[in-house]
Amino acid sequence: MATIVLIKNTAQVTSRRCFLSKLKGLSKAGECHSSRYFHVSSLPLTTWSSRTAGVRFTSHGTAGRSAASGRSRRRGVLALSGAAAITAAVAGFMANVNHFQRAEMATLVPRAADDDDEEEGGDILMRCRGFMSPPVTDVAVLQDRKGEMCTRMEMLIMETQAAFCKALEEVDGGTFKVDRWERKEGGGGISCVMQDGKVFEKAGVNVSVVFGNLTEEAARQMKSRGKVLKGKDGMLPFCAMGVSSVIHPKNPHIPTVHFNYRYFEIEEEDGCKQWWFGGGTDLTPVYVNKEDAFHFHNTLKEACDKHHPQYYTDFKKWCDRYFYVRHRGETRGIGGIFFDDLDSPSQEEAFGFVKSCARTVVPCYLPIVYKHLHDPFTAQEKDWQQVRRGRYVEFNLVYDRGVKFGLATPGSRIESILMSLPLSARWEYMHEPDLGTREAEMLEVLRNPKEWL
Amino acid sequence: MATIVLIKNTAQVTSRRCFLSKLKGLSKAGECHSSRYFHVSSLPLTTWSSRTAGVRFTSHGTAGRSAASGRSRRRGVLALSGAAAITAAVAGFMANVNHFQRAEMATLVPRAADDDDEEEGGDILMRCRGFMSPPVTDVAVLQDRKGEMCTRMEMLIMETQAAFCKALEEVDGGTFKVDRWERKEGGGGISCVMQDGKVFEKAGVNVSVVFGNLTEEAARQMKSRGKVLKGKDGMLPFCAMGVSSVIHPKNPHIPTVHFNYRYFEIEEEDGCKQWWFGGGTDLTPVYVNKEDAFHFHNTLKEACDKHHPQYYTDFKKWCDRYFYVRHRGETRGIGGIFFDDLDSPSQEEAFGFVKSCARTVVPCYLPIVYKHLHDPFTAQEKDWQQVRRGRYVEFNLVYDRGVKFGLATPGSRIESILMSLPLSARWEYMHEPDLGTREAEMLEVLRNPKEWL
Repeated sequence: MATIVLIKNTAQVTSRRCFLSKLKGLSKAGECHSSRYFHVSSLPLTTWSSRTAGVRFTSHGTAGRSAASGRSRRRGVLALSGAAAITAAVAGFMANVNHFQRAEMATLVPRAADDDDEEEGGDILMRCRGFMSPPVTDVAVLQDRKGEMCTRMEMLIMETQAAFCKALEEVDGGTFKVDRWERKEGGGGISCVMQDGKVFEKAGVNVSVVFGNLTEEAARQMKSRGKVLKGKDGMLPFCAMGVSSVIHPKNPHIPTVHFNYRYFEIEEEDGCKQWWFGGGTDLTPVYVNKEDAFHFHNTLKEACDKHHPQYYTDFKKWCDRYFYVRHRGETRGIGGIFFDDLDSPSQEEAFGFVKSCARTVVPCYLPIVYKHLHDPFTAQEKDWQQVRRGRYVEFNLVYDRGVKFGLATPGSRIESILMSLPLSARWEYMHEPDLGTREAEMLEVLRNPKEWL
Repeated sequence: MATIVLIKNTAQVTSRRCFLSKLKGLSKAGECHSSRYFHVSSLPLTTWSSRTAGVRFTSHGTAGRSAASGRSRRRGVLALSGAAAITAAVAGFMANVNHFQRAEMATLVPRAADDDDEEEGGDILMRCRGFMSPPVTDVAVLQDRKGEMCTRMEMLIMETQAAFCKALEEVDGGTFKVDRWERKEGGGGISCVMQDGKVFEKAGVNVSVVFGNLTEEAARQMKSRGKVLKGKDGMLPFCAMGVSSVIHPKNPHIPTVHFNYRYFEIEEEDGCKQWWFGGGTDLTPVYVNKEDAFHFHNTLKEACDKHHPQYYTDFKKWCDRYFYVRHRGETRGIGGIFFDDLDSPSQEEAFGFVKSCARTVVPCYLPIVYKHLHDPFTAQEKDWQQVRRGRYVEFNLVYDRGVKFGLATPGSRIESILMSLPLSARWEYMHEPDLGTREAEMLEVLRNPKEWL
């Protein structure tokens, strides 16, 4: 069952104070009575229709299949059963509470999730009310197949999108533009973009759930280990879904963050399913701030350590290797974690790990945003940010596997793939910071990745 | 012999007036006494040292081989003999004449070249005086191998660089930063960049001359037709050289221009040489201007028609196909010409064609620059320019074969490869101009390439 705890106003005030001190001073043990926060709402939940009223639903691309035909297609992908489910705490975000309360709650959700509270019996429709849009898969289909991994993962990515968007709206004061799109080959997605806000230059949080048939060659490319998969007449029914986000703030002292959590299922000739998870969260600051880096990496390590003592170490290294702009000899940022092809020790445990990761995105990033919200900056600092944004574009367009795969895949929604690009970027010929400057310090870290913990 | 015509001041004034009217109103037949212009200089040529005094020569990358060792390496590449040579008219650019005179002359050079005047007997050292830097190959080596295609092409690309840079400096009032670099594997280049000038946001004109040994696989990649080349023990001595340029102006009514002219020589196992030329010039306006488009394409067609009646038609189509941003369904700009693997009808004729093309870059572009120099523009127009710059970056990083080859080649000079990127660019989510606007008109042309003549 969902852990929805109603507490009195006085408790709410205490909780809020503790939470704020966490956000602003970065998490310190013992400062609050409990390290766990609960979702708080004493206001009635809004109805689905009142939520969607303010949201623009747009369908892009060639007119897609109906939900019904999508449903029949999905049958080709055999979802695996499992016991765990996701907290419904997020469902109350849309309640008509004041800004501050909403900010607090949005940021609290990931902590509530630390409980690993399961809500197998939770009502899918109820949980969907908190999303930025109705999910890609028809709610009735999700309800029918509640225990299947595809449903559980779709619910997780939708909840992650909502939690992150709400936390960002809260700090920015702006509103995400929500675009719902369909893929004519099967599936679709929900893109949430906030552009030119008060705090964020460009913030994109995208969910996609796509399915259909892959050629054996395409299936090989999707899996980084390149395992050979055997299909019926060379075709493999597949289902791929994920949540991904890139946030570019205006203030050069607030870093850019990126995360992506994804799940793949491919059905082989003999009816066996191959499945795997992938994902990661990484930070790209414009200036080195050791305290931020420690907070970010430590939050990720805590999530990893709950699942495997080696995960943080291995996935931190993988991240530094992956986000490498080879032609510059620089990493894109100060890393975080990155993993792919995760298909062990069991589907249940792998999903549990991905869930923990997805729920760290707000506590990893938001405290850093709040901390630097009012940092003053110079034109020179802004300029350096723009140059770093240029390098970000270089990585994304030249090396990023997801972007390359997306741009090369017919039927991809280009605007969703390229929403990761900053609003503006700059290329200065032969830009090299002077020795001893904070810009040179940043470059040094990018050229020689550090251990932050 | 070089056609260096000395005329009196009165004639100079007439010529200048005719020329300016051409620049400002775009070329109209019969306006001047002659459609041919001559290089004019009644002032003594400056010495080599006085020219180089104001130029910054910087060597980048790992300490390279000396000119001597580079020379011995060049021996592995058997240059082909030929009779034609390049006009030395450009040599007078550096003369201490006033700005206006220099602008005029710079822009006149390509017309003088229309004569196809050969100067086999011309002094290499004398011609080198007009360059932006000493050539990549030692002057003594060039003098020794004057008739060889490698030398003739190196002289042509150096002259093209100088002519274009001088014409741009003249209109901008700024000065190019000249960087000389060496490639440790053999060869080097000269990068000229003017950044944040009065007229140009970023202007790059690059020459490179590289040589060494290629693997058979790399050789296959270099030739777009992918012909299999057989090397000694799998290695093929090669020589590659070219001039390339991208100019991004500030005013959104002045289009971006790009050109690139290149030559390759590869020696096979049996000592036979494969050689081919490639190149092209294309325009990327922010707004459609039919008169500009006509002038640009017509100037290119005139150069093409002198060599083959089919060249313009074929190479115009090739250009539209090549500069295509597939994921957007748009061409990068309004095209021009593009060709590769040109190895017929003879080396002499192919070189003659490339020479004509290289000499059209100033008359193709500068009249358009002068025409729009003082066009007023709005913030909205500037914004649209920045969005188009973003698409330019997408093409260059995702599709451009030269950029991809360069970024993947160890020892490449990244700053020279990426100098084609604009100083600033913008990515607005879901940017789509309103129907009936000039922005929509531009998009329509990019989505459905036009015939301009």
